[in-house]
This record gives sequence, C-alpha cells and structure tokens, in this order.
Amino acid sequence: MPDDPLSTTRTIEFWFDFGSNYSYLSTMRIEALADARNVRIVWRPFLLGPVFRQLGFDNSPFVLQKEKGAYVWKDMERQCRKYGLALTRPSTFPRAALLAMRVALAGAQEPWIGGYCRKIMQLNFAEDRDIGSPEVVGEALDTLGLPTQRIIDAALADANKLRLREQTESAINKGIFGAPTFFVGGEMFWGNDRLEDALDYCETLPARA
Amino acid sequence: MPDDPLSTTRTIEFWFDFGSNYSYLSTMRIEALADARNVRIVWRPFLLGPVFRQLGFDNSPFVLQKEKGAYVWKDMERQCRKYGLALTRPSTFPRAALLAMRVALAGAQEPWIGGYCRKIMQLNFAEDRDIGSPEVVGEALDTLGLPTQRIIDAALADANKLRLREQTESAINKGIFGAPTFFVGGEMFWGNDRLEDALDYCETLPARA
Repeated sequence: MPDDPLSTTRTIEFWFDFGSNYSYLSTMRIEALADARNVRIVWRPFLLGPVFRQLGFDNSPFVLQKEKGAYVWKDMERQCRKYGLALTRPSTFPRAALLAMRVALAGAQEPWIGGYCRKIMQLNFAEDRDIGSPEVVGEALDTLGLPTQRIIDAALADANKLRLREQTESAINKGIFGAPTFFVGGEMFWGNDRLEDALDYCETLPARA
Repeated sequence: MPDDPLSTTRTIEFWFDFGSNYSYLSTMRIEALADARNVRIVWRPFLLGPVFRQLGFDNSPFVLQKEKGAYVWKDMERQCRKYGLALTRPSTFPRAALLAMRVALAGAQEPWIGGYCRKIMQLNFAEDRDIGSPEVVGEALDTLGLPTQRIIDAALADANKLRLREQTESAINKGIFGAPTFFVGGEMFWGNDRLEDALDYCETLPARA
C-alpha cells in the first residue's frame, strides 16, 4: 500500500478537543498509526463544551457522574502505561483552551499541526500546565520554532473564530456526542478505543484520486 | 502458565446484565479468553436498571441520549462483525430479564453457567427473542439438556431473589456504573473494550493457592 500513490488519498477525520482526556491518547497516537498506513489525517478541532450543552449536560460526564469520573482517571493511568505516555492528572478538568483550539483550527492544514497538537496535549495531560493561557500557547509555538505571533494573529482573526463555531455546529449536526470521534467515509467511530478500527476501515475503502 | 496448578486460582469477576448489549460481546468471548490463560471466571449477574436509577438515570444512556443510541447500534454491528458474532437489534431494548438473571445467579458456580449465559445472550441479541419470558428461559435450559424445573425452582427461591438484590447493591457499592464491568484484584475495568486488558492484568498478579 505505501507504494501506491493513490492510497495517500485515503483520509480519516479526527475530531478532538484539547480538554478531552481520551483525545489526548489519540492525539499522541494517530499520526504514527496513520502514516504507517499511508492514511491522511484531517484534523478537526471542535469545542466539546457546546456539544455537551446541546445534549443537556453542563459539564463533562466525567465531572457530572462521580463514579465514572473516579474510574476514568484509573483507566487513563492504565491506558497511558499501555501506550507509554506520561500522565499527570490536570488540576483543572476539563481545561478550556480556546486560543489553543483556534490555533489548531488555523493550522489544521499546516505540516506542524501534529506536533503542535501533541505539544499542547502534553502540556495539559503530562505537565499540568494551563493550556488556557496565551503564554502557554505561545510557549508551545516557540518551542516548535514556529512564527508564534503570525500564527496567533491568524488564530484570532474573526473569520477563524467564526470557523471554530461553525466546525462545532458541524460536529453537532454530524451526531458527534463526545471526543475523540473519527469519521472514515460516512462511518463514525467514537473514542480512542476505536482508532485502530477506524484506520482498519480506511483500508477497506477504495483509494480515490 | 497453563501447567502451573496455582495459576488456576487467578480470577476475573465478570459483572453483567443480559439486557446490556456490550455485556453480550463479553459474554460470548470471556470463557474462551479466560480458559486460554487459565483464569477462573467469577460470574456476577447484577441488575443494571437499579444501578442506573441510583445514578439518576431512568433508563439506559443508549435510550436517554439519542445521538449515543444511534451510534451504539452501528458500533455493535461493526464489533459483532469483528468478533464473528451474529446481531439482530432487539425489538425491545433494554430487555428486562429478571428470571433469566435469577437463573444466572443460582447457577453462577455451576459448570453450565458459561453455556447458559451465551445461550440467553444469543436469544436476545442474535434472535430477538423475549428473554424476559419464562418460556424462553425454560427453552434455553432445555436446549442445554439441564434439569429446567429444578433450576427454575432454585432461581425463584426467596433466598436467591434476595441475593440478586444484594449483588446489585454490592455493584453500586463497588462503584460500578455500567456493564460489563470486570474486577481483577482490586482493579475495576469497564466495558467490553477492556476485557483483554483485565485479563492481561490478571497475569501480572501472583497466583494464590
């Protein structure tokens, strides 16, 4: 497959929010897995908060349901150990990270998007840094050697802010109810546990030019 | 491992409800997987309805949240295809199956428990039969060549009815919020997606005599 140029046109849409703990697992894993299969990732940052509110929840289910919340962090410890990822339970959860999300949207088609998303996730879930603060977002971009100010300006442009609202609306319209969510062809896959299944499904589809 | 007689004392507790669709997947898979690792299964039927009510839900989240409900049956189709399991979406969901659950509790330590549970699950999720009806439960036991009347009598004994309520209370006290749930040592694993992880964790524990 990697030798077939057409196969590079197989795509997986990755819908995620930097505040979402299971999105952390997928963000750290997806690029290596997709590259190995020659699948292109379409990065789709969206705001999970408005999606939850639309469903009638005023917070993450992991906060609203204390039993599930207690479990989720045990599960995260085990999953991170399994994947070889660091984990420090964020002192604020879920962390709103509006600027970080706007940067992700502005950079979604840039070659640095994967590295940027991993960096932000790592700051939130491994280092317990406040990814909601502009300083931390700037630091992440600096660390990656990117033109920080130019990227922040693009992220803060009205058109980009509007696009993030629209992308979030689009998530709701597609039936997304949590993150991460993957789309391959018309098929929806929910949760980090389905990342491999979604990529397997990619490979069953004809590659398109 | 299979040659070590002590290793047979490693155990996994399997908490399930016949109405739960993801419990279907685990029920069909667990015995073969556990046998291959020489792990003993402790079958723990419990009533998911009272657990949901305790958490403030008056039905399955797959019914209460229509987006998640729509997704779950697509996911079930794909999961069943992956595991080679038949699936017919039950015309009533979730199906209450009190007698079937009482039989599972009465027979939890019998050699036929695995076959019985698979049979009931198959009737519900592959054949869309009403496993809430005594006739269907009787038919399942008959098919397995078991002493149906004696088993039903034991299931309907007051002490057994009480034990099912107590086991359900115990599920709540253990922090169970869904099914299937597995316990290995003190560790809780939630969902069919964690069955392999739970069994892997078994193998990290010292076998006890």
